[in-house]
Amino acid sequence: MAREGMDKDLLRYDRMVEAALRGVVREAIARVAGIGLPGGHSLYITFRSDFPGVEMPDWLKAQYPEAMTIVLEHQFWDLSADEETFGVTLSFKGRRQRITVPYAALTAFHDPGVQFGLRFDQMQEGEEKGAAQAGKTAAGAVPTPLPAPAAKPEPAAPSEEPKTAQVVNLESFRKK
Amino acid sequence: MAREGMDKDLLRYDRMVEAALRGVVREAIARVAGIGLPGGHSLYITFRSDFPGVEMPDWLKAQYPEAMTIVLEHQFWDLSADEETFGVTLSFKGRRQRITVPYAALTAFHDPGVQFGLRFDQMQEGEEKGAAQAGKTAAGAVPTPLPAPAAKPEPAAPSEEPKTAQVVNLESFRKK
Repeated sequence: MAREGMDKDLLRYDRMVEAALRGVVREAIARVAGIGLPGGHSLYITFRSDFPGVEMPDWLKAQYPEAMTIVLEHQFWDLSADEETFGVTLSFKGRRQRITVPYAALTAFHDPGVQFGLRFDQMQEGEEKGAAQAGKTAAGAVPTPLPAPAAKPEPAAPSEEPKTAQVVNLESFRKK
Repeated sequence: MAREGMDKDLLRYDRMVEAALRGVVREAIARVAGIGLPGGHSLYITFRSDFPGVEMPDWLKAQYPEAMTIVLEHQFWDLSADEETFGVTLSFKGRRQRITVPYAALTAFHDPGVQFGLRFDQMQEGEEKGAAQAGKTAAGAVPTPLPAPAAKPEPAAPSEEPKTAQVVNLESFRKK
């Protein structure tokens, strides 16, 4: 029953796990959209701002041309979770701005208050970008400062640094 | 927007991740059911044989009263993946026997040929069994021999020991 070769890619666990865990982010956002943010939680969401389907004002995209981290903690409005994207209104420089982000654009998700984190590659696009770059983006499973500048809703400065202790780096699911 | 206390449980990432990864097993089984087992793969599936909804002949359940590991590799028939359960026919003692297993009964899933593994707790039932037992079942993320005796389809003895190197132990998602 074992067949060699070309059909081996049909069981790519790394991709299945990545898709499943993006679904966890979707579910978390949907719950927060539905019931509000439970105490002790804050959502740090990092995404590629140049990813197709990301919508935000041009001046904001100019400020964060490649990556952006938003924080859902004290001030956010109209959070909505759809099948492929989520949307939220945040205050930047005193103005409320709507941002729409496909889950496929996410590169990291943290909820430091409960020490939970996920880190995603961008497998959808580049596919197998080569071991060198994969190694570069892996950087181990140890939490590191988020790669993108954090664009926080204005009065939302957390009282302390995120102390995320559990970050699941999806590189650990990839074949060596 | 942060509220303390009773609603904190609404963002239980550990449960969301566990459900998502059981979904990965479902997807993998569904793909194998649809296209056959790609070369280089073999599925080691460990489940609680006393879990509600597990169906197998009485004599087999008597032999594996608590846990059982089946191996889908060389000889298996009529693999089917439904929403909540999967079914497969295996040969035991020269007789083909049908086994039905809810995904919720799974405690481990390994595909040693590609060094992928998942290990599940049984959160659905016991819920928060206490730190002591949780610690006991955790045993670190390092792969260990499967806790259940492996009941293999007869000529299916793998040519070498499973060399699973990547096991995701869901304890790592749990709050300390």
